[in-house]
Amino acid sequence: MQRHFDKELEGLKTSLIKMGSIVEESVQLSVKALLEMNLSLLEQVNENEDRTNSLEIEIDNTIVDILALHQPVATDLRFILAAQKINNDLERIGDHAINIAESVTALYKKGGKLELISIPKMAQIVEEMLGNSLDSFIHNDPKLGMDVLGNDDKIDELNRNIFKCVVDRMKDNQNMIETGMELIRISRNLERIADLSTNIAEEVIFIAQARIVKHHAGDKKEDTA
Amino acid sequence: MQRHFDKELEGLKTSLIKMGSIVEESVQLSVKALLEMNLSLLEQVNENEDRTNSLEIEIDNTIVDILALHQPVATDLRFILAAQKINNDLERIGDHAINIAESVTALYKKGGKLELISIPKMAQIVEEMLGNSLDSFIHNDPKLGMDVLGNDDKIDELNRNIFKCVVDRMKDNQNMIETGMELIRISRNLERIADLSTNIAEEVIFIAQARIVKHHAGDKKEDTA
Repeated sequence: MQRHFDKELEGLKTSLIKMGSIVEESVQLSVKALLEMNLSLLEQVNENEDRTNSLEIEIDNTIVDILALHQPVATDLRFILAAQKINNDLERIGDHAINIAESVTALYKKGGKLELISIPKMAQIVEEMLGNSLDSFIHNDPKLGMDVLGNDDKIDELNRNIFKCVVDRMKDNQNMIETGMELIRISRNLERIADLSTNIAEEVIFIAQARIVKHHAGDKKEDTA
Repeated sequence: MQRHFDKELEGLKTSLIKMGSIVEESVQLSVKALLEMNLSLLEQVNENEDRTNSLEIEIDNTIVDILALHQPVATDLRFILAAQKINNDLERIGDHAINIAESVTALYKKGGKLELISIPKMAQIVEEMLGNSLDSFIHNDPKLGMDVLGNDDKIDELNRNIFKCVVDRMKDNQNMIETGMELIRISRNLERIADLSTNIAEEVIFIAQARIVKHHAGDKKEDTA
């Protein structure tokens, strides 16, 4: 019985890792499409969206089944409750990748010279945060999770600076308004991906240490821009 | 034993109802502050934020305790898993109310004549959706939950129209840029509250009917503006 239960937990973890690698790919591709203005990369992002939507429901159903059948306690229970949250966080990260993809398409259609300000730098840090949060989950490494939390303030600041910079440009040149709105949208969605990566890291820490580190900085807001 | 368990489930529901009524108040006050340009209403919104942050953690801990102690199955298990999601949805709604409050403060400081376009209409529908999703949870009424789902497209359309209208005004008058950014932010946060109300309604339907109605329209995206 116990062996069977362990196998199911392993299966749940494997599904989440799969979900994580799909949304990670979507984030990387949508950012790459932006940097290279290459729309063909976005096809995969849209395909991934369908896969993550199905996978999210599949994982949720697995969680209900495991809880009902095995009635786990202690670390196993914490793992499963965290799995439910991570599942939802990953699905939302996939949604933000789609939003970035939409903005890239809009920018491509608009054409013209594009200055990305510090968006490439921001994207690099966000991709690293997402990668580390997934690694911390895969290797059950709360220390790596703590590293992710440390980057959140940096991203908030980059997001605020990009916002200000774009608004200034829009004031100088009204032709910049539509382009500027898309840049702000991309920056905001990157910030949200960083925030959700932070959530995942917090869940890993919760699994390992059975303490809730949410609201750690007293200020974890949605969608700060 | 069973009677004790029922009491704990009742307690969990009561805590969620309390959480719901606090975030509902925050949404109403932040909208009222916008319509009346009355910043004094926002003090309560900020106080509520601290309360919901603590309450979210408290409810999450209660859920772990109930699952570990009573190992519920069937409807009770579904209720508890839905409770975890609703808890998170409500906390996020509170965050969006704070975002609206921040934008109201920024608009107040900026001064000048303010045209809210169809934001008041949108806010009215969103408040109704949130109220109905909470009522559907309180009275375990999936039919009312279905009504909430029906409004989501209307809100998406209002959000898109407000966005376009504001961008047009920004193009006509660069003095409108900063005000316009705040209006778009308010509209987007209202749209997110509608989306989270939809999530809550879906959870109520899940509890009642044990079927997952997520991704019902094939297109449930985060943060569409």
